[in-house]
Amino acid sequence: MPERTHSGRLRRGERMVVMAYHLLNAPYRLFSLGTFVELLSAAKSTVSEDLSFVRQAFDRFQLGKVETLAGAAGGVRYLPIPGKERMRSLVEELCQRLRDPTRLLPGGFLYTSDLSSTPRYATALGEALAGLFGENRPDVVLTVEVKGIPLALMTARAFDVPLVTIRRGAHVTEGPAVSVNYVSGSSKTVQSMTLPLRAVMPGSKVLFIDDFLRAGGTARGVHDLMREFRAEVIGIGVFIETTAPRQKMIDRYVSLIEFGGVNDRGEILVSPSRWL
Amino acid sequence: MPERTHSGRLRRGERMVVMAYHLLNAPYRLFSLGTFVELLSAAKSTVSEDLSFVRQAFDRFQLGKVETLAGAAGGVRYLPIPGKERMRSLVEELCQRLRDPTRLLPGGFLYTSDLSSTPRYATALGEALAGLFGENRPDVVLTVEVKGIPLALMTARAFDVPLVTIRRGAHVTEGPAVSVNYVSGSSKTVQSMTLPLRAVMPGSKVLFIDDFLRAGGTARGVHDLMREFRAEVIGIGVFIETTAPRQKMIDRYVSLIEFGGVNDRGEILVSPSRWL
Repeated sequence: MPERTHSGRLRRGERMVVMAYHLLNAPYRLFSLGTFVELLSAAKSTVSEDLSFVRQAFDRFQLGKVETLAGAAGGVRYLPIPGKERMRSLVEELCQRLRDPTRLLPGGFLYTSDLSSTPRYATALGEALAGLFGENRPDVVLTVEVKGIPLALMTARAFDVPLVTIRRGAHVTEGPAVSVNYVSGSSKTVQSMTLPLRAVMPGSKVLFIDDFLRAGGTARGVHDLMREFRAEVIGIGVFIETTAPRQKMIDRYVSLIEFGGVNDRGEILVSPSRWL
Repeated sequence: MPERTHSGRLRRGERMVVMAYHLLNAPYRLFSLGTFVELLSAAKSTVSEDLSFVRQAFDRFQLGKVETLAGAAGGVRYLPIPGKERMRSLVEELCQRLRDPTRLLPGGFLYTSDLSSTPRYATALGEALAGLFGENRPDVVLTVEVKGIPLALMTARAFDVPLVTIRRGAHVTEGPAVSVNYVSGSSKTVQSMTLPLRAVMPGSKVLFIDDFLRAGGTARGVHDLMREFRAEVIGIGVFIETTAPRQKMIDRYVSLIEFGGVNDRGEILVSPSRWL
């Protein structure tokens, strides 16, 4: 039976939906109870009770974590960390799609842009990548143009932090900038990447997200670039890594999918990574 | 008072939160009542009643539209169309931030990447751009690398359709591709843009989204490129347009913000566009 309510008064379910809307739309943002008290014209005790039911629903259906912080600076926030089970079923679905032989491109690459640019996959992958770093929240998510941008944006969204995109080449178009040269691990050519000085503050903790990791030359270059900004790379996360070369130019990273090339029967070898 | 319930049974509010979660995470996707019946182990009449309360909450707080479609192919879906009032207050806030004089770049450009790459702004701007096209849903959202990608992805997300990114230059890296030359309206130089053949199907309705519109040369090029794909450009939406030149190289487009350069006192002239 629906709750009885005076016309104009909100039902508990309606209040819960409005709270869920705000929490979901701004992951990691801390809402004080007062915000909801005002928005919903409800008593603090009511809001607090509503929130415990919201949290319960999120827990039960593994929709991420609704976290209550106590104290004067306290409140409630939403961490869109998917359960391992959901992450694995997402990655299995993507592996299935990546095994389509028409995806093979010259040079041993895979056509993947359509998947990482499909908003519902990009959202889920961004949350999965954020989930692998858990509570280790960065100040900034960094990527290198172009194909990693959708995933990096959705990872930034899951952490509610800005995305910063490093440009390839050395054109300066957005004010004073820093460029570094780096050796592309796969093609062994020297390339450069550029970032406006104002884009990353000294002391920032940055998380580097990209769509593809082969030898790790780009990630190595990002490390060097961040040293110039006096910023710290606290993590590297990629959608797909190649199994060869096994030895990467960087020490620590995580990936969602491993790509092992093509076997004798022309089958594309992809599987969930060892972090899942 | 919270509703009494047997342990293990869900309260109405919890069911409503779970439904809201799925609707919000997949705008435009049609969920059959059966999906929720199964997910929540509830009767169809219960689910249907719950949904009417969800819709009521969304209406009352202008959170977008929850739409019920009748019939065998029916179900419920969420259209994240913000009210005019919310769109205007978002755009006013961004105008305020754009008036910061340190944003002026050589060549009369504005530094805007930090705003369009902040996930909460990108999400809201994408929904606002989608909102300007209302029920005219495209099959694909199109953009040209690099700076428009975050907005375009979030517009694509609001419509639950794929994003396709046109690359500048003529490198073919993702299989057979089509290139066109175009004249950049502002610099008067001939440039080229490229898109893999498989990225857009013939007959597709495409919406072109970009961060900045000056003379409209890029948009003109996108029109030409789409003609080669036998696809139809059903709309053009940009974050910021310059007031000069008044005469653009394209007929129809919408923008959110107008940028009129700098006045005698060194103030940056930005204001909400005439579509708000």
